[in-house]
Amino acid sequence: MSLLVVGSVALDSVRTPFGVRERSLGGAATHFSVAASFFTDVGVVAVVGDDFTDDDLQVFRERRISIDNLERVPGGKTFRWTGEYGFDLNTAKTLDTELNVFADFAPKLSDAAKRSPFLFLANIQPSLQKEVRQQVDARFVAMDTMNYWIERTRDELLETIKVVDALIINDAEARELAGEANLVRAARKILALGPQMLVVKRGEYGAALISRDSYFATTAYPLESVFDPTGAGDSFAGGFMGYLAQAEQIDLSTLRRAIVYGSVMASFNVEEFSCDRLRRLTPDEIRERFLQFKEFSHFEL
Amino acid sequence: MSLLVVGSVALDSVRTPFGVRERSLGGAATHFSVAASFFTDVGVVAVVGDDFTDDDLQVFRERRISIDNLERVPGGKTFRWTGEYGFDLNTAKTLDTELNVFADFAPKLSDAAKRSPFLFLANIQPSLQKEVRQQVDARFVAMDTMNYWIERTRDELLETIKVVDALIINDAEARELAGEANLVRAARKILALGPQMLVVKRGEYGAALISRDSYFATTAYPLESVFDPTGAGDSFAGGFMGYLAQAEQIDLSTLRRAIVYGSVMASFNVEEFSCDRLRRLTPDEIRERFLQFKEFSHFEL
Repeated sequence: MSLLVVGSVALDSVRTPFGVRERSLGGAATHFSVAASFFTDVGVVAVVGDDFTDDDLQVFRERRISIDNLERVPGGKTFRWTGEYGFDLNTAKTLDTELNVFADFAPKLSDAAKRSPFLFLANIQPSLQKEVRQQVDARFVAMDTMNYWIERTRDELLETIKVVDALIINDAEARELAGEANLVRAARKILALGPQMLVVKRGEYGAALISRDSYFATTAYPLESVFDPTGAGDSFAGGFMGYLAQAEQIDLSTLRRAIVYGSVMASFNVEEFSCDRLRRLTPDEIRERFLQFKEFSHFEL
Repeated sequence: MSLLVVGSVALDSVRTPFGVRERSLGGAATHFSVAASFFTDVGVVAVVGDDFTDDDLQVFRERRISIDNLERVPGGKTFRWTGEYGFDLNTAKTLDTELNVFADFAPKLSDAAKRSPFLFLANIQPSLQKEVRQQVDARFVAMDTMNYWIERTRDELLETIKVVDALIINDAEARELAGEANLVRAARKILALGPQMLVVKRGEYGAALISRDSYFATTAYPLESVFDPTGAGDSFAGGFMGYLAQAEQIDLSTLRRAIVYGSVMASFNVEEFSCDRLRRLTPDEIRERFLQFKEFSHFEL
């Protein structure tokens, strides 16, 4: 496969101001791989329990996502997350997390997986991310993380950041990681840790790509109905990495388009619960929204 | 004059993490007019006390801003604001406000002022804004407001919004005014109140221009050193209105460039206390930063 992702496959229960969905397919690796599957062939490294049904697998099959590296633990229970969004939809309140089989997750990679040229380390324990990174002889590696790891396993996290090309995090995390309120200075500190680039997710404000000598920012799609923000960041990363994996070369121009495709995929993902919207998404819809992003930012000199 | 602004001229005392400045020239009409003066001829409608010195007037003279409509109240004291910014610089904490001569401000306009084709109603009591608006036979009128008026004088405010072309407010204010967390829906409600367009200021995330059938967004300039955010919104509005006032026609293309010039002026304004940075700004610097904004948002299809 061209693109490999390691991360959670979960069963989510989500409450938003617009509805409730119990036990729906979720997890970072799920949202990532479904989004990326519109651009390239993707494989998932994850673990589930035997409560994970054939129906749950259906999305992966439909999108031709490789589940060769999806481990199933007999007698185990799949990772479960229960969360709630308030009126402004900006921050999820976690009501319950059951790690279940994820607590002892030791990623096992097939030989084919180890040869993936593109690798995404979704938000899991930094030492696991590093372990996977070292097994894959990838050409381009990106990772996500979160405040939990920044606060509790900082040293491990810094070791992992050192060995990736891109760090994809939200702006509060970037500020916290760098201990610096100004985002430009925070980015400079983070780039000094090793990565070539920082991709900053800004929710409804869009995303930015910051490298040592360039800055690019895009707005988010101006959605009138954000229905369920769960997986926005992961589908963003999926669009970004998926687009890169199918490109002929990774130059600044490609990276910028990848940021916009990431934003496109995130904007579709939040329109419905779980992967519902992406399951009936078409390449034409993706392209159309991509062109709209061009229009949103265009001005003549 | 081409562009008239009514609003506060103040003496500010500001504390930021980087320093303290006592009794420096401030106020919405000041920041607005200084920024706009790089594009067109501007006049200020405001009131000061006799503690307002010749030195305080110097900035207006340097920038050839008309003070024919700047009233001086004998024995009166100029409006004073004391504020403080924390580490993240996003929100000012007001420590003290002395309205002084501003409490009884009744804007008086010269005949020349009444013929200004462009008018900006800076953040003051909505009934005063409307009074001025009705005296000026302007071609294009924009206004600012704040949470204080949204909460306390909502009906008056709605009457004023009805008679302007553009409302220029920050995103929290737009949501509060519309009673709607989703910005796109909030914008739709606000446009239904009368204005042709809503300009949303998003601080470090940039600005957006929303009309009934178009959406444009720009990032903010990625500054490594935001020194003092006071006046950012007003210098933004000054760049926006100043650029419009010198343009041959107001079409979507002009409006988009105006949003970017507004962002350029705001980015310079926050680099130093008061109007210090704008006093030594050059047209070449403005143009150079404008071109950088183009580069920040550019991607190929």
